[in-house]
Amino acid sequence: MARQTAQAAVALGGGHGLFATLSALRRLHDDLTIDDLTAVVTVADNGGSSGRLRGEFGVLPPGDLRMALAALCGDDEWGTTWADVLQHRFAGDGEMNGHVVGNLLIVGLWELMGDHVRALDWVGRLLGAHGRVLPMATTPMDITARVRGADAGRPDEVSVVRGQVEVATTAGQIESVALVPEDPATCQEAIDAVLAAEWVVLGPGSWFSSVIPHLMVPGLRRALAQTEGRLVVVLNLEAQAGETTGFGPEDHLAVLFEHAPDLTVHAVLVDSSTIDLAGDEERRRLERAVTARGARLVVDDIAVAGEPRHDPDRLAAAFRRIVDEG
Amino acid sequence: MARQTAQAAVALGGGHGLFATLSALRRLHDDLTIDDLTAVVTVADNGGSSGRLRGEFGVLPPGDLRMALAALCGDDEWGTTWADVLQHRFAGDGEMNGHVVGNLLIVGLWELMGDHVRALDWVGRLLGAHGRVLPMATTPMDITARVRGADAGRPDEVSVVRGQVEVATTAGQIESVALVPEDPATCQEAIDAVLAAEWVVLGPGSWFSSVIPHLMVPGLRRALAQTEGRLVVVLNLEAQAGETTGFGPEDHLAVLFEHAPDLTVHAVLVDSSTIDLAGDEERRRLERAVTARGARLVVDDIAVAGEPRHDPDRLAAAFRRIVDEG
Repeated sequence: MARQTAQAAVALGGGHGLFATLSALRRLHDDLTIDDLTAVVTVADNGGSSGRLRGEFGVLPPGDLRMALAALCGDDEWGTTWADVLQHRFAGDGEMNGHVVGNLLIVGLWELMGDHVRALDWVGRLLGAHGRVLPMATTPMDITARVRGADAGRPDEVSVVRGQVEVATTAGQIESVALVPEDPATCQEAIDAVLAAEWVVLGPGSWFSSVIPHLMVPGLRRALAQTEGRLVVVLNLEAQAGETTGFGPEDHLAVLFEHAPDLTVHAVLVDSSTIDLAGDEERRRLERAVTARGARLVVDDIAVAGEPRHDPDRLAAAFRRIVDEG
Repeated sequence: MARQTAQAAVALGGGHGLFATLSALRRLHDDLTIDDLTAVVTVADNGGSSGRLRGEFGVLPPGDLRMALAALCGDDEWGTTWADVLQHRFAGDGEMNGHVVGNLLIVGLWELMGDHVRALDWVGRLLGAHGRVLPMATTPMDITARVRGADAGRPDEVSVVRGQVEVATTAGQIESVALVPEDPATCQEAIDAVLAAEWVVLGPGSWFSSVIPHLMVPGLRRALAQTEGRLVVVLNLEAQAGETTGFGPEDHLAVLFEHAPDLTVHAVLVDSSTIDLAGDEERRRLERAVTARGARLVVDDIAVAGEPRHDPDRLAAAFRRIVDEG
């Protein structure tokens, strides 16, 4: 049964995973299924251009915010041109090498305005972005991970790894992640958006370093627990070397709930090829886990055929079906 | 007699001088006296953020282009905000220190599009600029100056100084300037704008390093000689330490004609306080020089009272009178 009125959606994540979700949700925004779209973005990156700017200015790492803004650009000449400009990485051989135009623009606006949200809104206005981009917190932070066997010589030893880059590339097995500081300043606009949304989408993305961190910001997690919005968890297409080596679909879900046992999930969306590859037993495990949480499992074609990345059009179609079914 | 139809104007210069002219001409654009406004900008800077970017990327120095774009921004919230962003200079203590947001944006667009003019037009669209900004040539270049007494120990010796920064700050007396390369690639859009304009404004600004260089680009100078547009030369308010130490108004005009004997000038605009301070004899010298070139001298209040900078409103009023009198 199609809903009669447009609804608000919030997508939480970071990096390429959030880019895929937003590219899909933008299509629901364009056809008026969603009339209010907000991205809430991880701000714990410590590598690359973002890491350098964070080190120099003490600001939030801008990279994932910039990528989310680019995902919300329109398909017309204006949108595609400014998305390209925003995403352009300098190719020189000097001090600018590796910096990204949009990162510098965002940091410039932060310096000038002294207000994270206002500055991001201005970049959004420049782009004609089809939605709003907010940070998950307004304090720059680090991710730490308890990792088993980070040192190959001592496979059973648990140690703490600090930094998004270091967590994402650890040689050991991640047991849990946390934030430093533990209780970063929340972004009130992000909290308000989660509380007001009809739909909240979490994932896909680097599971421990982009997705789960949202659950570790206490204020944001409380909002996720309190909202009447329906939470859709989008699982990754495959395990990610380093972060989730050897993980099946159910393992992704299991660690999510280990970090946030109180989370109420409406639906878990998983790609059909992913589930086919995982096999019948893994599928039954996943179904049991999803049902045990009172959620429903949605298996759909959401990947680019033969590639380990989400297809924005297919993902949009899957979201549309979930929204229509309510 | 007021003219019935709007007209096209081109302003040539660089730096703060061109910023003042454009801020004034923008007012004539706003009230429809001018319906087509183009800035043609010196691109020989080798210092600061521009010099660093030019060194790293081999592109045109973006700084004066960026300043011209900022001058063409509107007075509404959109225009003033983006002008501020464009002009924002990073205050960090690392590799970004001293870089200017607008310079990075322009260089990013140049890298991405590989087309100077198209990229500047896109920045103009972002800003909602009330006119177009073009480079005086599309080859990065250096200014050289023949300088007498650059070395204080040998006051009569003439040597060659290279680089806009070095020319602007020489301890000696500049006799002439030239460009390296001597015949840089012209910007066809700039040539076309000069040829099509009813009004062409040259100056004020750093006389040897921002104003006269336009006359040293052969293709541009031919256009300035050929155009039926009326050339208005705006003189500086005072001598500039280094470049024009000891220069009176007539000296400025004299060196201009030494560099471009074939230039036809319609009017020479000079501030009344400047001419009062210079004294009666200098005024008579200037009048004779202006009359000898078939031009007319316009003395008007165009400075901020008591300050050595042009007032955009007063300069606009002076331009309006000149245009109205035709």
